[in-house]
Amino acid sequence: MNTFELNLKYVKDEVGKALSTSPLVIRTYTKHLLKSEGKYIRAASVLAAAQRADGSIHPDAIKFAASIEILHLATLVHDDVMDNADVRRGVPTLHKEYGRKTAVICGDYLLALAINTANQVESREAYINYQLPNYMEEIALGELSQHLNNGNYRLKMDDYLKIIEGKTAKLFEASFYAGAVTSQEDKEVFDTYKRIGYHVGMIFQMLDDCIDFEETIKIALKPVQSDFEQGVITLPLIHAFDQNPDYIEIAEKGDLSRKEVNQIVKQAEGVHYTKQEAQRYYEIAHKDIMSLDIENEKREELLSILDLAAKK
Amino acid sequence: MNTFELNLKYVKDEVGKALSTSPLVIRTYTKHLLKSEGKYIRAASVLAAAQRADGSIHPDAIKFAASIEILHLATLVHDDVMDNADVRRGVPTLHKEYGRKTAVICGDYLLALAINTANQVESREAYINYQLPNYMEEIALGELSQHLNNGNYRLKMDDYLKIIEGKTAKLFEASFYAGAVTSQEDKEVFDTYKRIGYHVGMIFQMLDDCIDFEETIKIALKPVQSDFEQGVITLPLIHAFDQNPDYIEIAEKGDLSRKEVNQIVKQAEGVHYTKQEAQRYYEIAHKDIMSLDIENEKREELLSILDLAAKK
Repeated sequence: MNTFELNLKYVKDEVGKALSTSPLVIRTYTKHLLKSEGKYIRAASVLAAAQRADGSIHPDAIKFAASIEILHLATLVHDDVMDNADVRRGVPTLHKEYGRKTAVICGDYLLALAINTANQVESREAYINYQLPNYMEEIALGELSQHLNNGNYRLKMDDYLKIIEGKTAKLFEASFYAGAVTSQEDKEVFDTYKRIGYHVGMIFQMLDDCIDFEETIKIALKPVQSDFEQGVITLPLIHAFDQNPDYIEIAEKGDLSRKEVNQIVKQAEGVHYTKQEAQRYYEIAHKDIMSLDIENEKREELLSILDLAAKK
Repeated sequence: MNTFELNLKYVKDEVGKALSTSPLVIRTYTKHLLKSEGKYIRAASVLAAAQRADGSIHPDAIKFAASIEILHLATLVHDDVMDNADVRRGVPTLHKEYGRKTAVICGDYLLALAINTANQVESREAYINYQLPNYMEEIALGELSQHLNNGNYRLKMDDYLKIIEGKTAKLFEASFYAGAVTSQEDKEVFDTYKRIGYHVGMIFQMLDDCIDFEETIKIALKPVQSDFEQGVITLPLIHAFDQNPDYIEIAEKGDLSRKEVNQIVKQAEGVHYTKQEAQRYYEIAHKDIMSLDIENEKREELLSILDLAAKK
């Protein structure tokens, strides 16, 4: 286990510690979720950005990473309530197993726990501008906007980008920001870290939206072919509609089958188009990472997270 | 308008300001809620506890009061999702009007907004021990415990008290605590303020639970005769079951009608018993208020909030 992996283990321990005092029903569910969560990409983002010149990280970075993973868990729990989802990462959802009420409350509890974990850092005054609740607000707004645009087949790419910014990219921005504030680097580069996080998050979500067009759950390791069914319109389909506006009205009449959706997306190369867009974000993030005055080891880690998000 | 009423108006303005930047769907709903909210008893609690020897309050008390009212709104929104409630204070619920998804997200947004509003105080370092997210956690645990005990006709009085402590009393404790930390009073009396708030909240909820046994919505100004139907077992009924344990098994078989519930509660004087218990809490809070070394005007205000909670 290298230092990075060791630190990631510390984050998992910290999340476990925070959850250990929570009621059984919450622990049971989150234990499942955490087990199947292989990547911990948000925590890894905090740790990479937190790295100091001597390769060490401040213990506060562990707290911040744990708090962000807990916040992410909270949003998953509430997402499942909203989507009426039965399965998440191969495990029955809390919503499915314990009912809507429990899931709403557990999500609320995890939101509070996330903020309380972030508040446990040693020197809160030092990080006064990094505020997790601000990001919580952004995430809710992103989710709201996605929901209000549910079934809106005329959604434009700009609106799509705004939605995924809120629901995904902002928490990645928070991750890189949280790491950076504990890193002893100059305040002047914080914005660069935030921007890297933002782009990493945008890439992550765009490619996630491509996965929904994969053919089977087996390949994707998560439910596929479900966004359109749930009224969630993503970039591959937006691009296809752009190319074939006639289909918009057909969709609005409820006459567009999933099979036809797949056909027009394939024809318009919607997935390819989305990956190209993601590549543009990749290049911006790459350039930002290269611009930082940091040790090679840190740069490698930041790049590997970028690659992880880009599924390269 | 006296100073107290003026300050309460400032709190309402502050809540309005915080909500003014929120999406239309949230504003529409909360505007209704806020209009019909006559008492603002939690905000009034903050203001009363915040009063300084010269009768003034620090502007931070306004922020804290607003943040607590917003947190309270958030819990109402999520409560409605969980209860599938159609009407709250005579207004259709957000849940009913805009659907479950919107309500879950709006609640999350309001939770974040509450914390962000509290974070806007001038001197956060001065209030480091007062942490709204801690209370958010307690509230969620209270709600969870209530839900896990749904339909538990063997609920004991102690468990009932623990539940209402989390779901109601803790936010009143927070209100008195938040006021006190801005008041220039000695740290030594903070615990007294917290205890007063706790007892005020317990009284408030116990008497609220009595209202559910009122005969008509018109008298109660809120849905009545609904707790039992929703599986929420409150003190009047717990006392009745204590007196007539035979009815527990009948209830467990699903054979206890609402009419019979009302009959056994009436026979056992469950409402009277509950009011007596509340009176015990009243006396403790009263004694605590009298013990404080404060100006008469402040004492009067604290007492009037106690009376308001006790519906005297």
